[in-house]
Amino acid sequence: MAKQCIGIDLGGTFIKVVTLDADNNATEVFQLPTPDNREDVVAQMAAGARQAMERNGLSGENVAAVGIGSPGPLNVEDGVIVAMPNIPGMDNVPIRDLMTAELSMPIALENDANAAAYGEYICGAGRDDANMVLLTLGTGLGSGIILDGEILRGSHGMGGELGHMIIVPDGEPCGCGQNGCIERYCSATFMAQRAARRIASGDEPTSLRAVLEPKGDIDARDINEARRAGDALAADVWDEALRYLAQGCVTICRAFDPDRIVLTGGMTNAGDDLLVPLREHFAALHWTLAEPMTALAISTLGPDAGAIGAAGVAWRTVD
Amino acid sequence: MAKQCIGIDLGGTFIKVVTLDADNNATEVFQLPTPDNREDVVAQMAAGARQAMERNGLSGENVAAVGIGSPGPLNVEDGVIVAMPNIPGMDNVPIRDLMTAELSMPIALENDANAAAYGEYICGAGRDDANMVLLTLGTGLGSGIILDGEILRGSHGMGGELGHMIIVPDGEPCGCGQNGCIERYCSATFMAQRAARRIASGDEPTSLRAVLEPKGDIDARDINEARRAGDALAADVWDEALRYLAQGCVTICRAFDPDRIVLTGGMTNAGDDLLVPLREHFAALHWTLAEPMTALAISTLGPDAGAIGAAGVAWRTVD
Repeated sequence: MAKQCIGIDLGGTFIKVVTLDADNNATEVFQLPTPDNREDVVAQMAAGARQAMERNGLSGENVAAVGIGSPGPLNVEDGVIVAMPNIPGMDNVPIRDLMTAELSMPIALENDANAAAYGEYICGAGRDDANMVLLTLGTGLGSGIILDGEILRGSHGMGGELGHMIIVPDGEPCGCGQNGCIERYCSATFMAQRAARRIASGDEPTSLRAVLEPKGDIDARDINEARRAGDALAADVWDEALRYLAQGCVTICRAFDPDRIVLTGGMTNAGDDLLVPLREHFAALHWTLAEPMTALAISTLGPDAGAIGAAGVAWRTVD
Repeated sequence: MAKQCIGIDLGGTFIKVVTLDADNNATEVFQLPTPDNREDVVAQMAAGARQAMERNGLSGENVAAVGIGSPGPLNVEDGVIVAMPNIPGMDNVPIRDLMTAELSMPIALENDANAAAYGEYICGAGRDDANMVLLTLGTGLGSGIILDGEILRGSHGMGGELGHMIIVPDGEPCGCGQNGCIERYCSATFMAQRAARRIASGDEPTSLRAVLEPKGDIDARDINEARRAGDALAADVWDEALRYLAQGCVTICRAFDPDRIVLTGGMTNAGDDLLVPLREHFAALHWTLAEPMTALAISTLGPDAGAIGAAGVAWRTVD
């Protein structure tokens, strides 16, 4: 029987699990709830790996390696989760050693954003690319960069943090301590904040006021729905965020010149409502020395990319 | 006798030539004037290679390969200079084939900014680095990026154009067709233009007015000299440019996380007058999640980096 790698995506809410063969064929991703303490998280991850083996009729010797995608900060070299703010006790967890003890298999650890990028690269939207950048539009703006099949990590494991490119001098303060980071201008969270701020401060007529008041907040989907229904403020906030995102995409082209920038995260459920205006802004902001050659596309693996990519990273460790 | 590679840096004014052994020991760089037409340029480059052999007592069989660093745009794969605006007839020059015919040696072609970065990487300011970015502060802002020993070219040969990162939304128009490119805010040329504009438009007292009027223009050196003598406008222009440059350096860290960003070009003759305030702005603009780990440094090879790097690129083609 052909060997498989198991991929585990450790998230704050779910642990997602998949198996992947050497030709990058993935099985269906399944998920288990993420427990609320360190011991149970490790046990649940091991249980997920065992379930993946059962579902696919694999014995231990059929599994080449297990890859784990985890939120950072990580010490990838030593296989340690340095911190995971949402789960108590998840500080300095030697996850590689703990999982090796549970499963007696080789374990690889990777940053979750890098794992998702690698997943899209090997069998998602970037499967035909040499160089690909993944941007995750969520509470922040996460990213992973794949150059000639290698994950860009940088000299100190801090490369590929494109959400913190500074795109506005002296701009909005960011949680990272910088000002003007791109994630302050186009993540889903901050799009919602900008809309709420305009609603609170101005007299602009907008249907979003009727959404905000009962719910207490607004999300990117509300904004897009209001925009589609003709709301001018919503259209403006939506468009402004995409223009900033396009500015960042141009800078990504100047730095990396990738085949493709792949977008993922909740906001991309808007599909062409996001992609069409983004491409228009991108073409308008792009230099005129050459036509844009980098494609902008939406993820094909969606929330499964992290688990699949983690399995792909595991394959990289197999001789 | 140990083999050598010859490096040729084709500039608008001079052709610089060097030899480099397999351990990255370079001979002294010498230069010949750049002729004003295509035939003579090719002949002069070949003459330079022959002179390098004579100076170092090399016969044809001692030369492993010849590397050429040239301004772009280039077709590196086919060995063609696509255009070289300052020299008539330098359009679509199959320089690799022409030089092979002249010298009967393997010829490698590389973008001059990439060659300079590679030179600093193998035996200059970046010789101990895994990942290094070179920024050339001149008429524009050129760059070359070396990741794990490889020159970053991108999918369409247009990567590493960091002078065209967009750092100001709807900012100053750039010759490339974009607005707000970093080279509009911190290259030597544009620093001089900003000073001249402020002198022309305002009533600010400045010693630079007395420099501008007889000379007709101002350069970065004038600005730094006036600044050192206590001129407030000059200090402001100098500092503003370095703050924008520092913003760009932070974005470079977020993208690449290099060991070092190396600065070169005429403006770096200012030494610590440039480096000290640049480092201060960099530390102030940098995120607080971790101390800055990327060093900012000035080139150690200066204008020789291009020829040395071209020879280094030639070595990469030798088995």
